[in-house]
Amino acid sequence: MVVPAVRVAPSAANRALGLLRTVQYTHPPNCPCHSNPNHHHHHRSTSLADNVRRHLASPVDASRQKEYAFEMAASSIRFGPGVTKEVGMDFKNLGVNRVCIVTDQNVAKLDAMKQAVEGLSREGIEFTVFDKVRVEPKDSSYSRVKEAIAFAKPYNPDAYLAVGGGSVIDTAKLMNLYTAYPEADFLDFVNAPLGKGLPVDKKLKPLVAVPTTAGTGSETTGTAIFDLVSKKAKTGVAHRNLKPTLGICDPLNTRTMPSAVHASSGLDVLCHSLESWTAIPFNERIPRPTNPINRPAYQGANPISDIFSLQALRSTVKYLPRAVKDPDDYEAQSQMLLAATLAGVGFGNAGVHLCHGMSYPISSQNPGYKHAGYAVDHTIVPHGVSVAITAPAVFRFTAASNPDRHLAAAEAFGVDISNIKRESAGEVLGEAITEFLIKLGDQPRGLKALGFKESDIDGLVEGTIPQKRVLMLAPTLSEELEAEKQELRKLLEQSMEY
Amino acid sequence: MVVPAVRVAPSAANRALGLLRTVQYTHPPNCPCHSNPNHHHHHRSTSLADNVRRHLASPVDASRQKEYAFEMAASSIRFGPGVTKEVGMDFKNLGVNRVCIVTDQNVAKLDAMKQAVEGLSREGIEFTVFDKVRVEPKDSSYSRVKEAIAFAKPYNPDAYLAVGGGSVIDTAKLMNLYTAYPEADFLDFVNAPLGKGLPVDKKLKPLVAVPTTAGTGSETTGTAIFDLVSKKAKTGVAHRNLKPTLGICDPLNTRTMPSAVHASSGLDVLCHSLESWTAIPFNERIPRPTNPINRPAYQGANPISDIFSLQALRSTVKYLPRAVKDPDDYEAQSQMLLAATLAGVGFGNAGVHLCHGMSYPISSQNPGYKHAGYAVDHTIVPHGVSVAITAPAVFRFTAASNPDRHLAAAEAFGVDISNIKRESAGEVLGEAITEFLIKLGDQPRGLKALGFKESDIDGLVEGTIPQKRVLMLAPTLSEELEAEKQELRKLLEQSMEY
Repeated sequence: MVVPAVRVAPSAANRALGLLRTVQYTHPPNCPCHSNPNHHHHHRSTSLADNVRRHLASPVDASRQKEYAFEMAASSIRFGPGVTKEVGMDFKNLGVNRVCIVTDQNVAKLDAMKQAVEGLSREGIEFTVFDKVRVEPKDSSYSRVKEAIAFAKPYNPDAYLAVGGGSVIDTAKLMNLYTAYPEADFLDFVNAPLGKGLPVDKKLKPLVAVPTTAGTGSETTGTAIFDLVSKKAKTGVAHRNLKPTLGICDPLNTRTMPSAVHASSGLDVLCHSLESWTAIPFNERIPRPTNPINRPAYQGANPISDIFSLQALRSTVKYLPRAVKDPDDYEAQSQMLLAATLAGVGFGNAGVHLCHGMSYPISSQNPGYKHAGYAVDHTIVPHGVSVAITAPAVFRFTAASNPDRHLAAAEAFGVDISNIKRESAGEVLGEAITEFLIKLGDQPRGLKALGFKESDIDGLVEGTIPQKRVLMLAPTLSEELEAEKQELRKLLEQSMEY
Repeated sequence: MVVPAVRVAPSAANRALGLLRTVQYTHPPNCPCHSNPNHHHHHRSTSLADNVRRHLASPVDASRQKEYAFEMAASSIRFGPGVTKEVGMDFKNLGVNRVCIVTDQNVAKLDAMKQAVEGLSREGIEFTVFDKVRVEPKDSSYSRVKEAIAFAKPYNPDAYLAVGGGSVIDTAKLMNLYTAYPEADFLDFVNAPLGKGLPVDKKLKPLVAVPTTAGTGSETTGTAIFDLVSKKAKTGVAHRNLKPTLGICDPLNTRTMPSAVHASSGLDVLCHSLESWTAIPFNERIPRPTNPINRPAYQGANPISDIFSLQALRSTVKYLPRAVKDPDDYEAQSQMLLAATLAGVGFGNAGVHLCHGMSYPISSQNPGYKHAGYAVDHTIVPHGVSVAITAPAVFRFTAASNPDRHLAAAEAFGVDISNIKRESAGEVLGEAITEFLIKLGDQPRGLKALGFKESDIDGLVEGTIPQKRVLMLAPTLSEELEAEKQELRKLLEQSMEY
């Protein structure tokens, strides 16, 4: 910085200072850009890129109490074939002596776990293993989580190591959180409206996450999802202080995923990227937090999350079909692991919306569907399947909010958009997603194929409504409850068959 | 994760397990992909994208001890007009009571500082101000840094707050580092070969950085640069544990930059993005670290840094000319602040190479040039000017390493590359950069315009050679010293006039 103010032409400097004062000290501000009451309404109908650009370019209307800033936080990521074995050195470098390893009984037998355990042993780090995390959909439930927390408390580890899929990593986050707040009521940190949604205001212990699926992106995010059986809802805790210290992304660890798991975890990545890319822009979110600790992790699309989300979408379109079709296509598997992580950074800071909001009741109200290729002893709609199943209808619906962005997504699917009208953006993207799902193979073509009937739709709508945290990021969704229900009902009806 | 191994077709599972064992347990591995001794040599001549892809797709050749992983670490970033005033709450949320504010005497008078101080006061946080950082080129020297460290030690703050440009933020990093290691010799952490380059193995105190220029990206990186006058070299400390906790990017704070400072700091962004985008790929870097703490911050281009670098390049090409020409183009200024931060994440993880390597002697051996628009009482080649001045020659030279990547960069400058041969990539990119610099205006057209003569070139070469940390990332540069000097000499000769 070199004596800036004095070098600006005086008139410009005065204008700038005047503007600064206007923005920062008057309330409400009298910036000419906001004198038009339809100003923000107008923004709604323009492209998000324009929107963000305009907001970057203009001071903030404090009277509306919309958000004026975005925050970008992600775990450090290490990516490479074989990096799992470095984890012991990482803990040693962090000055950690006692580690609680969190995994499930299947992963416990895999090479990822072997490498991690050997890594800790080599460095003389003491550890215990909690391997009772179970997999989706109902098993990462509150009681399981409580069991995990009860396990961790007496061991009092210096750090946590999660080796597994999203349920495992999320459970480790919750163990870390609730051992740091031993007096807390479980609902204190659970997302509103089901819980109190308090911010995480303590520094938690180091958590290193080693994903063994390429899907949730949980190794980068501050989100932990579980079934709150008492309320018949899937919900979670979400705060950026919950995010792992380090995500160790080792493509050797996803090699053993069966094809069906590649497919459904990849569909989760697809929806993370599509939903975060199309979420309402951060500066349309209400209310603006009065303290930065209350700025939610899911804050709406922003210029940095956009980069991650679009790149993850492009990679998924390119590599997921290959990863599903050829179990030896190690390149495609590696790229999908990277895409899952990129999408994690994207949605971890922007959020997801309708597909995820509706997926929770779809999974938990499963009428009896058991997805092929899943070796479990119970009915199951895998998470990725339950999010993707509404995607064609969802993006047809949301396109009106931002046709350019939906066209860009269609382009990522390989559609030539040069002659497509903006009014057709939703139709074109919906079609592209449908085609992608059909070509991927072995996917249920709508809710009917899962066994849902028209009469089940009201239940699904009721199960979606509590997902406020994600629904608030859905563009074009009505705020008024009855209208919102009507729109959700329509989306679910349109998702019965594709 | 759902019982993965058992669901893979047995033959594929066996192949996968066999491969795992090969990669992880044999040394050297007998992977067929590496039986050809020209394998890596061959990689050199293919595109980096292919290169990274192939390495993602194939196991690692341990016998060559090349890197096999990359790590992505960045400060959390908060971006928005007016966010500076949140900083007091951030420190309170971190549990901080005593803050050492680091700034310079010019910035001390600006609104950024006023907002920061008011923010701390509002939260009742005690602070002291060190305002003796001075600006480039010679002022952030070792003795200044020592003075800063001596100031911080007795105050013993809980945290640091840097408000200013790159010199200020870098000084705050060094104060934080050396107060954590009171017994350390200054050279212990300084980059080799000038210093010992020891890793930072302690957790430092929180550092919040509020940039007032849109250039260095220092708010996101673990790098601190200064003049080591005793060795007549610009060098620094670089380790990811040095990175700020939070970068507060407030576009209101760069409004007061004079046009010339917009230009030169923007040229730094341009070169950060171009150099990190074209740096050697991470998996060509030698040696592979035996402990992850020794993995350098500047690790070569990787799939995540690429996303940041290319996006920053595109934004800079689009917005820098506008930011320079119109002091009231707040949108362009905001976008340049964002681009500087994105480029910071890119080069902070990938590194820079030749333009930065040569810029240090160009600035410090300045024959008497004083850049117009800089209100300082001494001669000055602003850092951004000294990096950009060799850019046309540098990218003509490096293009052979990876023509596709250089063509993509040319495309970011708006060049239609559809009919351009790969052999012409360097010429086309060099031309595009030259044209950009000329159109930007008020830039010296080569070293001659700074007052350098042919006879000064040997001195510049000698001053570049110690910049090992960045030169090792330069593609196509010879490893043998005499050949390397010859190549640098040629680049400097070609940079005399453009």
